[in-house]
Amino acid sequence: MSDAAVPNDPEQRLQQLREAIDETDNALLQLLQRRRQLAAEVGTVKRTLGQPLYVPEREAKLIAARRAEAEAMGLSPDLMEDVLRRVIRESYQQQQAADVHLEDKNIVVVGGYGALGGLFAERFHEAGAQVHRIGEGEQDKLASVCSTADLVLISVPIAVTLEVIESLPELPERCVLADVTSIKAKPLQAMLSRHNGPVVGLHPMFGPQVATLAKQLIVVTEGRRAQDYQWLEDTLVRWGAQLYQTSAERHDEAMGFIQVMRHLSTFVYGAHLAGENANLQELLDLSSPIYRLELMMVGRLFAQNADLYADIILAHPENFAMMRRYLDTFNQVLEQLEQGDKSGFVAKFAEVSAYFGDFSQKFLEDSQRLLASAGDAHQLSQVARR
Amino acid sequence: MSDAAVPNDPEQRLQQLREAIDETDNALLQLLQRRRQLAAEVGTVKRTLGQPLYVPEREAKLIAARRAEAEAMGLSPDLMEDVLRRVIRESYQQQQAADVHLEDKNIVVVGGYGALGGLFAERFHEAGAQVHRIGEGEQDKLASVCSTADLVLISVPIAVTLEVIESLPELPERCVLADVTSIKAKPLQAMLSRHNGPVVGLHPMFGPQVATLAKQLIVVTEGRRAQDYQWLEDTLVRWGAQLYQTSAERHDEAMGFIQVMRHLSTFVYGAHLAGENANLQELLDLSSPIYRLELMMVGRLFAQNADLYADIILAHPENFAMMRRYLDTFNQVLEQLEQGDKSGFVAKFAEVSAYFGDFSQKFLEDSQRLLASAGDAHQLSQVARR
Repeated sequence: MSDAAVPNDPEQRLQQLREAIDETDNALLQLLQRRRQLAAEVGTVKRTLGQPLYVPEREAKLIAARRAEAEAMGLSPDLMEDVLRRVIRESYQQQQAADVHLEDKNIVVVGGYGALGGLFAERFHEAGAQVHRIGEGEQDKLASVCSTADLVLISVPIAVTLEVIESLPELPERCVLADVTSIKAKPLQAMLSRHNGPVVGLHPMFGPQVATLAKQLIVVTEGRRAQDYQWLEDTLVRWGAQLYQTSAERHDEAMGFIQVMRHLSTFVYGAHLAGENANLQELLDLSSPIYRLELMMVGRLFAQNADLYADIILAHPENFAMMRRYLDTFNQVLEQLEQGDKSGFVAKFAEVSAYFGDFSQKFLEDSQRLLASAGDAHQLSQVARR
Repeated sequence: MSDAAVPNDPEQRLQQLREAIDETDNALLQLLQRRRQLAAEVGTVKRTLGQPLYVPEREAKLIAARRAEAEAMGLSPDLMEDVLRRVIRESYQQQQAADVHLEDKNIVVVGGYGALGGLFAERFHEAGAQVHRIGEGEQDKLASVCSTADLVLISVPIAVTLEVIESLPELPERCVLADVTSIKAKPLQAMLSRHNGPVVGLHPMFGPQVATLAKQLIVVTEGRRAQDYQWLEDTLVRWGAQLYQTSAERHDEAMGFIQVMRHLSTFVYGAHLAGENANLQELLDLSSPIYRLELMMVGRLFAQNADLYADIILAHPENFAMMRRYLDTFNQVLEQLEQGDKSGFVAKFAEVSAYFGDFSQKFLEDSQRLLASAGDAHQLSQVARR
């Protein structure tokens, strides 16, 4: 604007400024386009080099450098970081995963027509493996395809996982037997009993709708002969996944909190709103960003598969006692409040704060940032009315 | 890259591409900087013109235009929109609110040293009003400052709101009496009894930490003589706030779900995790983005003020019966699951899905977008370990 004539009339000046903003937005569009092309080419070269797509250290370094530059220019480092992370996410979706060569592998995906099984079957196929998918009622095909398999991956509903594992035919001694069930102890035990070769339990912590495995978490619970399924782990890492090793027992205990308790309380929350016939549009209109987000997290459950949630919850019956304790706590807190015992509530609050420790402050800050971005998007109608 | 020599060696090529990406990132930084300056100047000109900061229609139009351009260039419209919204948020924080002239107003903020009361007191002061803050134990000052007041704003803890209203001195007949309590029926009734002039109940749906009122929601419940507090509403709108008109009763009923139920179940969720001594770091390590977000929403509560939450919950005792029904529902669902009644669970699920209707799909899509951005930020350590 510096060399253009600056009109004295504020209306004209406003118009001029708006045109200048349009120009910068157009330049922004061009830049994003160029960056996308460069990132896509990086992906291609990385494939040639067989390098992994996602290198956390490099990304962290790049972002730290840009933050520092923004700061030096008097621009908000958070703004630069948020924009950059969003752009980088797009790049990952554009980039092809590093070249993985599995031409020498025979892979059987039991449940390979399902959403998650299909995702893995396709990736293996793209990597050059011979992939055999086994669908429902096709178990008679198993014996022949398994006889030469390097990997048999079980991706069937939780409710039938154990049965499917137990009815597997004899596998070659070098063949890896793996599953992707969201519980780990029982399937792992069943796989170890059924097969004497390498065994590993996997739990991909994402849904089949993900565009790429980049940055996705996969929990790995060792069964037997980890060195013999190293190639499978390497493949997942090349695709960009992050592996987290733990025991089946610790995994299942954590899932009691992560899946059972959360799903169940979300389900009941939704059921209660339905039972009370609460007016959702009104609740949304009257909500702050944080509550709108929370309502969203409840409502989204009910756009999903009832069977899947039922199976996940019912697969963890050992957690029902834990949920009973949750209800007891709820009941105690409510009784305290019914008696108007504010100091009791405040004391309990302090106790829980101590348990969360530094996490609560960190959560507050992180969520503040996320809520700000939820506010940007104005995702749900919230219009002044008169 | 087109005119530079393209090396055959992939390592060299990778290096070259990375440098080109650095260049685009630097250009991006410059652009963001320029856009910020332009937006700041727009703010200044708007002040001169007395125009409101936030015009939802213009923002929607601008974003739609940019989306269309991105699409035409083969770039993801969502990427362009997300980046633009983030940039626009920054602009609002930079821009000064439209000039508001309250030089002719005498304003008393009871609780004006508190966080929220202080925020309003400051804004009024900046707008040129004579502002008198009344703190705890300063009630003896009230009579003199109220005798010439154009607005008395009550911003004190819920637990003492009614008492403070009842002990107000006589107000001038034209004076507006307003409060910002998070319950509305009782304070509104008390204000109408105490004062014969214009009365309005406000509930700002945001915390005192907000950088600007732009886009923030304020619930307005009419008391008496709306035309006489129109200037107050106009002021809030000029500051960028969105007003939502409803009755005190509807407001309070909705807050039962929004504040009481949500706060209470979040509190109990945290208390239960504490009681079970769940390992938070492990839960985070093992979480998908959605659960990490949910855990964050629970934990953040405990970084906040226990008294405030206790007061909010205790101010709505009529909701305890509703919470009892929630517990009953929880108990029924848990019993059903303990009996392994999957079909009962699935039937209930379908019922709740029907209640949520189109909202659940919308929530799923909106949250997907938000979760993707939570994933970008990698907000909590999630590192592959071996």
